[in-house]
Amino acid sequence: MTFIPKDKNFVKRVEESFHQQRFMKFINAQLIKVEPGFCEIHLPYNPDLTQQNLFFHAGIVGTIADNAAGYAAFSLMNVDSSILTVEFKLNLIAPAEGETLIGRSHVLKYGRTLTICRSDVFIVKDNNEKLCAASQSTLMELAG
Amino acid sequence: MTFIPKDKNFVKRVEESFHQQRFMKFINAQLIKVEPGFCEIHLPYNPDLTQQNLFFHAGIVGTIADNAAGYAAFSLMNVDSSILTVEFKLNLIAPAEGETLIGRSHVLKYGRTLTICRSDVFIVKDNNEKLCAASQSTLMELAG
Amino acid sequence: MTFIPKDKNFVKRVEESFHQQRFMKFINAQLIKVEPGFCEIHLPYNPDLTQQNLFFHAGIVGTIADNAAGYAAFSLMNVDSSILTVEFKLNLIAPAEGETLIGRSHVLKYGRTLTICRSDVFIVKDNNEKLCAASQSTLMELAG
Amino acid sequence: MTFIPKDKNFVKRVEESFHQQRFMKFINAQLIKVEPGFCEIHLPYNPDLTQQNLFFHAGIVGTIADNAAGYAAFSLMNVDSSILTVEFKLNLIAPAEGETLIGRSHVLKYGRTLTICRSDVFIVKDNNEKLCAASQSTLMELAG
Repeated sequence: MTFIPKDKNFVKRVEESFHQQRFMKFINAQLIKVEPGFCEIHLPYNPDLTQQNLFFHAGIVGTIADNAAGYAAFSLMNVDSSILTVEFKLNLIAPAEGETLIGRSHVLKYGRTLTICRSDVFIVKDNNEKLCAASQSTLMELAG
Repeated sequence: MTFIPKDKNFVKRVEESFHQQRFMKFINAQLIKVEPGFCEIHLPYNPDLTQQNLFFHAGIVGTIADNAAGYAAFSLMNVDSSILTVEFKLNLIAPAEGETLIGRSHVLKYGRTLTICRSDVFIVKDNNEKLCAASQSTLMELAG
Repeated sequence: MTFIPKDKNFVKRVEESFHQQRFMKFINAQLIKVEPGFCEIHLPYNPDLTQQNLFFHAGIVGTIADNAAGYAAFSLMNVDSSILTVEFKLNLIAPAEGETLIGRSHVLKYGRTLTICRSDVFIVKDNNEKLCAASQSTLMELAG
Repeated sequence: MTFIPKDKNFVKRVEESFHQQRFMKFINAQLIKVEPGFCEIHLPYNPDLTQQNLFFHAGIVGTIADNAAGYAAFSLMNVDSSILTVEFKLNLIAPAEGETLIGRSHVLKYGRTLTICRSDVFIVKDNNEKLCAASQSTLMELAG
């Protein structure tokens, strides 16, 4: 599906919002790609982000899925809109054991109030990408 | 509902697992209470854990909900079992703006393989607790 | 939690909407109770509503959970509002094997645009109620 | 992704199970296509399956999404396995107003115990297919 962003400076707007999220800086997440209705975020491995087996924590996997979805949706929104996550659902599919976590999300439906996204989270190990989580999210556009 | 834990040292077992999760230490989450089929986790405010409005990040809210659910379920499991989050779904209900985030989860059904939990996340502001998120999770017990 | 309905004739309004849903009549679902922010629906067993083991079909269990949530939310809405289900998530917890399926839902948060509900579905067998499914839903109020 | 079914007679096994579900017959759902890890189900419009606006009821939309997911997963399972829906999450994206409801589901991950599927539900109106719902499901394989 092809989306026409309402704000032609959507990349800059997404980048600015991403860099205002101090949690993204705290965990060293990188905004890699923003296209209309799409976003990709990378997160390098850091033992501070792990659970009891030293794999990425499920909360971190959910964070990357949720944020990729939020910025995929935000890329299409009006220049003065803000965005809220209404809800998300995440399936953890394989252990997040590897060097980099990659979240990719695309918009399924951009609506006047609500936007629906699907996200995939991959774990990279020895240059091999493996699906480790899948998510579906509802986002809300708040005018002004 | 009243649950009988299979392992009478379940509190110690939950505490040990919690303290092995380096992400819990990194964000300074506190395991406050563990009962059979119940868990409560607190997280003090820290601007490093915030989104663009300086409220707790949705990923952090999800982390606390997921971890409370995981340990509520783990409290009932066999002494040598390990636990996996299969999936969770989180509704964000109010802005997580306040001094402390509190996650409370209880087991709805403890099954041989799968356990279902419901979690509530509260934000404390000026000594007032307010529901800010609600979650439902599926956990899996792995023998041995 | 106590809710004050905006429309004092909310019971009548819920009943009318329920009886306009031809699918409820087709499966013989009964609206049993409506209170502010709460709804209970019963469904007698009928082999036409079953899956391969002759238990209630998961789609029917989801229908009862979703509809109970919808009317719990609708009970609080403005007299001229209509309602949409945005999304729901359902865990199937035990086989729905018995004489009556009971859906009970209550509102967790009634918001200006979005309302969040939790639903429990019980199966009655030999006069014994057993939890067979648990759900969390997001509903939307449409003005006018 | 390409899946190798464990049972080469998987199409026949899926068809038999589908036809044992009396609810599928009751609503006149048609099993249209079964491939390894994929299933498509059609449902012709019938006013008995509608909500208050005479569109397909959300419970029916969920039924078609859930059943397509179940049979996409079941196509890959062992010859003597049975299948359970653990949970599903459904977003309703557009009104299900039209002549035919189409559910298509594919397996994201086929695991030893749990299988994850994504489903799309389309509504056909004037020969035009439109996405009206999106779902993510967890299914469980039961040996013997």
